[in-house]
Amino acid sequence: MAELSVENEVNGQAEEDLVNPWTVSSSSLKGVDYDKLIKKFGSSKIDDGLIERMEKLTGKPVHHFIKRGIFFSHREMHMILDLYEKKQPFYLYTGRGPSSGSMHLGHLVPFICTKWLQETFDVPLVIQLTDDEKFLWKDLTVEDTHKLSFENAKDIIACGFDVNKTFIFSDYDYIGKCSEFYKNITRVQKLVTFNQVKGIFGFDDSTCIGKISFPAVQAAPSFSSSFPDIFGGNKKVPCLIPCAIDQDPYFRMTRDVAPRLQYLKPALLHSSFFPALQGAQSKMSSSDPTSSIFLTDTPKEIKNKINKYAYSGGGATVEEHREKGGNVEVDVSYQYLRFFLDDDEKLEKLGSEYKSGELLTGFLKKELITILQELIADHQKRRILVTDDDVKQFMTPRKLNYNY
Amino acid sequence: MAELSVENEVNGQAEEDLVNPWTVSSSSLKGVDYDKLIKKFGSSKIDDGLIERMEKLTGKPVHHFIKRGIFFSHREMHMILDLYEKKQPFYLYTGRGPSSGSMHLGHLVPFICTKWLQETFDVPLVIQLTDDEKFLWKDLTVEDTHKLSFENAKDIIACGFDVNKTFIFSDYDYIGKCSEFYKNITRVQKLVTFNQVKGIFGFDDSTCIGKISFPAVQAAPSFSSSFPDIFGGNKKVPCLIPCAIDQDPYFRMTRDVAPRLQYLKPALLHSSFFPALQGAQSKMSSSDPTSSIFLTDTPKEIKNKINKYAYSGGGATVEEHREKGGNVEVDVSYQYLRFFLDDDEKLEKLGSEYKSGELLTGFLKKELITILQELIADHQKRRILVTDDDVKQFMTPRKLNYNY
Repeated sequence: MAELSVENEVNGQAEEDLVNPWTVSSSSLKGVDYDKLIKKFGSSKIDDGLIERMEKLTGKPVHHFIKRGIFFSHREMHMILDLYEKKQPFYLYTGRGPSSGSMHLGHLVPFICTKWLQETFDVPLVIQLTDDEKFLWKDLTVEDTHKLSFENAKDIIACGFDVNKTFIFSDYDYIGKCSEFYKNITRVQKLVTFNQVKGIFGFDDSTCIGKISFPAVQAAPSFSSSFPDIFGGNKKVPCLIPCAIDQDPYFRMTRDVAPRLQYLKPALLHSSFFPALQGAQSKMSSSDPTSSIFLTDTPKEIKNKINKYAYSGGGATVEEHREKGGNVEVDVSYQYLRFFLDDDEKLEKLGSEYKSGELLTGFLKKELITILQELIADHQKRRILVTDDDVKQFMTPRKLNYNY
Repeated sequence: MAELSVENEVNGQAEEDLVNPWTVSSSSLKGVDYDKLIKKFGSSKIDDGLIERMEKLTGKPVHHFIKRGIFFSHREMHMILDLYEKKQPFYLYTGRGPSSGSMHLGHLVPFICTKWLQETFDVPLVIQLTDDEKFLWKDLTVEDTHKLSFENAKDIIACGFDVNKTFIFSDYDYIGKCSEFYKNITRVQKLVTFNQVKGIFGFDDSTCIGKISFPAVQAAPSFSSSFPDIFGGNKKVPCLIPCAIDQDPYFRMTRDVAPRLQYLKPALLHSSFFPALQGAQSKMSSSDPTSSIFLTDTPKEIKNKINKYAYSGGGATVEEHREKGGNVEVDVSYQYLRFFLDDDEKLEKLGSEYKSGELLTGFLKKELITILQELIADHQKRRILVTDDDVKQFMTPRKLNYNY
């Protein structure tokens, strides 16, 4: 995985961040060094100029995920804005690997941003559920991951996507329904060698052939010709992919092969990782339940987990905290508030009072617990209203309503 | 490819036969040493005992391809006969890689035998057209190979298969129609590593990921669960695969993974190769037109090609031939007569008269020309009657008529 690692200087020693689609880890309590990652991956920083241009063109403020640097990196977002300026079409593509029925808070991040992008730019959206990937990587059966894709679709739908503009698909289902999708998969597979996926994904000779060829399955939805029902065979509708930056290796590969297929390279918006309760050295992960707040958690569970596990940036004692102040960069509660407290002023105030030592970690935890209890209860209320028919509608290949 | 090669002693030197799905070559004019191949591949010889049992159980003589050793090797044919004896079901699976619109004589061999098996055992048959494989291996587009699969289907249908018992499918089409097929593909892909396909197929690090994962696509039709329309979800209908022995590596791999999927291992009947006009060192190949008699050739083309190219086992001069006699083992016309002259007595007579020097190669060529002109004209007459609707019917996933 060396190719994807990013060096951090810690205590004078070169330590490495590990960032790939299967592992994210950092030796620093502040988490991955994203500036170094941008340099390593060769993407571009989302800077003030880009944010200003987005706000000017759309006539509304950017989502706080973008303003606060949670989405921090991009590839060719200016090209997408050029199109928008000329009233030319593009579409959004994001996804989820259904390895567990219970999605957690971190999983919401790309979907919240994607929903905002869909509403703001009024564009169609495809959401890939990689049940084939999760079968290949996990100790799960085909039936397990296929079923989980429908469970996860309910959580995704509960985020509030517009059914008239959104197609959600399980790979197992959609490959079995649309030849054009499999055709594009093989087109990508013909242009990528084992040497290349070895370099990009760290595969070796003992990797199964399913994993080796899978990157093409995640690449194919970047091309509008994979969706004849939506785009009527138009091969030249550009694609914008909002995703966590650990997925970038797939799309670097995709962008590499696209011109050779006479397809367009997808543009990207990269988010940082949602930290584990234990701190930003690792991201929140379903496979470690104590690291995660699930969308199925009760108000009590949310409260207990945050109180018990959320890493504190405060002093060892109240006296020390009052004297030296708290560290917002490592305090998990503060970091979560950056994601889920909309109110900029309030966040600013909490931050400066915490840094000054005026507020204790316990106060931040209390604020966070209230916000998350409400957010998750609301999500649960919406999810319970999602019927099997709704899922079927979202997951049926069909024409979407968009004005191009 | 060393793993698949078979050593021949030629002039005191160890020379190697090369046998894999992409190359068949031998340093011997008699062609590949099939006894050595059986030993190397670990299959079983079709012996008199097996032939007698087949004839006794079916109440009819075996096809001359089997009697004459053209189909010479098998895996678990006795298991298939055990089932037949107990009136339990099995199905046939064979295939073709559509790399060219013009199929040649050699391509007919597995289909002629398969048709005989279908009629004799009264069983369903699936025929895979690997348009995805040919896209990955050849300098052809997806559209090219997909179109060729329909052209080839017409030639296959013209062999006289029973539409009520036969399903022909293009991979691109069928994968895009049936999730169960892709599910089985990924099930196989999860159990096979790069190391394994490297050993079996000679892939290396510069092989594209499509080729690396393709063997699973050829494996999947060996399992009845890949055809829910035919077998209604029954996962335990055994499969018999008649094919040229160069395809055995795919099915050795398939037989290796089957038990781990709780599927049945497919049984096999292996044919020898149909020799090139130039002699048995290589097999007839569409990519070398002078080596091949095509199913589209005119009577004149057939005559000219045989007269011009068919390798002779006769003496250098008439005098030498009369004295020493001809060599039926290397004479291509005689070898082709073994395939296409039904009449055992006549073949025997021609052979002994040729060996004695009484008959010249020219006479064998004349006999062969007459037979092939008639065989190919008949094929062309049947092919012209195959309509697009017929093709559609054969290629629609559906219930087949069989009594289990």
